[in-house]
Amino acid sequence: MIRTPYVLFLGDAPDPLAAKLAQGIKDWRPESSIGQIRLPGCRADMKMPDMTPRAAADAGAKTLVIGVANRGGVISEAWLDTLEEALEAGLDIASGLHHFLKNEKRLLKAAQANKRRLHDVRLPGTSYPVADGKPRSGLRCLTVGSDCSVGKMYTMLAMEKEMHKRGLKASFRATGQTGILITGKGVPVDAVVADFMAGAIEQLTPDNDPDHWDLIEGQGSLFHVSYSGVSLALIHGGAPDALVLCHEPTRKHMRGLPEYPLPSIEDVRDSALYMAKVVNPHCSVIGISINSSGMSEARANAYLSEVEQRMQLPCIDPFRYGAGKLVDALHSYQTTRV
Amino acid sequence: MIRTPYVLFLGDAPDPLAAKLAQGIKDWRPESSIGQIRLPGCRADMKMPDMTPRAAADAGAKTLVIGVANRGGVISEAWLDTLEEALEAGLDIASGLHHFLKNEKRLLKAAQANKRRLHDVRLPGTSYPVADGKPRSGLRCLTVGSDCSVGKMYTMLAMEKEMHKRGLKASFRATGQTGILITGKGVPVDAVVADFMAGAIEQLTPDNDPDHWDLIEGQGSLFHVSYSGVSLALIHGGAPDALVLCHEPTRKHMRGLPEYPLPSIEDVRDSALYMAKVVNPHCSVIGISINSSGMSEARANAYLSEVEQRMQLPCIDPFRYGAGKLVDALHSYQTTRV
Repeated sequence: MIRTPYVLFLGDAPDPLAAKLAQGIKDWRPESSIGQIRLPGCRADMKMPDMTPRAAADAGAKTLVIGVANRGGVISEAWLDTLEEALEAGLDIASGLHHFLKNEKRLLKAAQANKRRLHDVRLPGTSYPVADGKPRSGLRCLTVGSDCSVGKMYTMLAMEKEMHKRGLKASFRATGQTGILITGKGVPVDAVVADFMAGAIEQLTPDNDPDHWDLIEGQGSLFHVSYSGVSLALIHGGAPDALVLCHEPTRKHMRGLPEYPLPSIEDVRDSALYMAKVVNPHCSVIGISINSSGMSEARANAYLSEVEQRMQLPCIDPFRYGAGKLVDALHSYQTTRV
Repeated sequence: MIRTPYVLFLGDAPDPLAAKLAQGIKDWRPESSIGQIRLPGCRADMKMPDMTPRAAADAGAKTLVIGVANRGGVISEAWLDTLEEALEAGLDIASGLHHFLKNEKRLLKAAQANKRRLHDVRLPGTSYPVADGKPRSGLRCLTVGSDCSVGKMYTMLAMEKEMHKRGLKASFRATGQTGILITGKGVPVDAVVADFMAGAIEQLTPDNDPDHWDLIEGQGSLFHVSYSGVSLALIHGGAPDALVLCHEPTRKHMRGLPEYPLPSIEDVRDSALYMAKVVNPHCSVIGISINSSGMSEARANAYLSEVEQRMQLPCIDPFRYGAGKLVDALHSYQTTRV
């Protein structure tokens, strides 16, 4: 568990996109951050108070989160003075970069000297059990995609926000670096040793109130040959009661695999549901989430209607229109089922 | 790569079953071992010359393989003197135990002092790439099972033996500890980090002669909720041209999961073939391998005929009757296809 409140480190971000992670934290957990730290030349701005590490610590911040990524996912030389200052001021540091904080000698030394923690969220922080497949109380919803990066995290975060607004019990369950940094906890499932993937997801989604929904962030796709094993472990470890299908209709081929076409939404539905029923015979597909960012509004609307009609399932772009339609569907599934 | 020839360490095995691994090496790679090392009280016997570590080294052995398992997979105190002697005599040591050789201080010290290698085959020895899904030359056959421990390794080893006898090009590709110790190399896929599982299998089965078959040892089952992700990574990383279905008909429930019934052979066929076609549209199921050890010969024969009839596929127990029928099927698939 990463301690909050955060101060968001934007570094020398060359443009707003480089600070996508900080933006995600601000969008989904605005209450978790009290300020931002920017270096000269920074072109990103979260519209939060600018602070030094010391000022952030004095204002109550517990963790500096590296909210910026540069090419190659390394820790820039230009950041080191500020990061060291943060540790000396009493802050922990959290990072989702490929290059680990723990491998930077200056930071490791400063963390030890000041008894601070370095959270490398790409490294599993604990050991996980082998999955036992036992039923758990409470309800679980999982996003499954036609490809990587089609909106699986976004959809679950948007549904959580809407469910909390309605006073429904729901917890977003992060399974990737970004989601873990946004919410402060989770399992970096693609970094877990193969034998323990499904067990890690069982542990992430334990027994809960009968009317509580775990909203599990999906990863990869059953049809993405590089990562499909992770996707299946999420289905079998998550034992979902409900699935939301995620798709990006303008994608030309599977991400990183130019030779592979995308599966149809029907293929995603059939394969994911078949596999989910192995572990949870009650599982149902409750809706479809479309990432229509590559379409005009008119084209997106026509596409959403067409898919809704064809699939006979609620179909929405939660970024454009909110997740209300998906939460309606989840709630009505829950009511019918109980 | 583990250096041969081996000397097989049977320790103080309380019964022949405890030396199952040594038996596997003797059955499948008889030429790879020149003798056995037994301690007082050992009740297993490979009918090979008994040796001391020193005598084994003098006779040309390169590696002592721990061919015995005791409860909990630990390295017994009673073995340490002999294992240390082996290192001093110039032998490497290889082990598939849960408890690692590298964590035994005495052995680590002796290995360093004598410049010998300790092979813990449950630890991946290298880093693997992310799978790129690119087609490779050569042919690949994979065993997929209704459950764990239904004969997936045995079937591939039996087919390799039969293919070599017929002068066909084939290589068994080990993906588990036992297979790696039997053949001296492979990928312990269940110990690989999730993101690299499929890539590790691609690396294990590289470009080859157009008429060469990789015979890939399957793991787990798409229907075993603890390990299904590993099974799918094998399908997508292996990109098989041919699948052999493996089943044990007397099993009452999925191994280690008392609440889970076994899938039908039809379910295994349909799900594995569907997933294999994502990466290799030419993939075909060529036969069925039955582990009929729990059946009388009469009952086994009736069952094999019934399944062959029902599935319209060659069906055999390779332990009882050899793998000839499966190799016939593989060869005729290859001929039709080319």
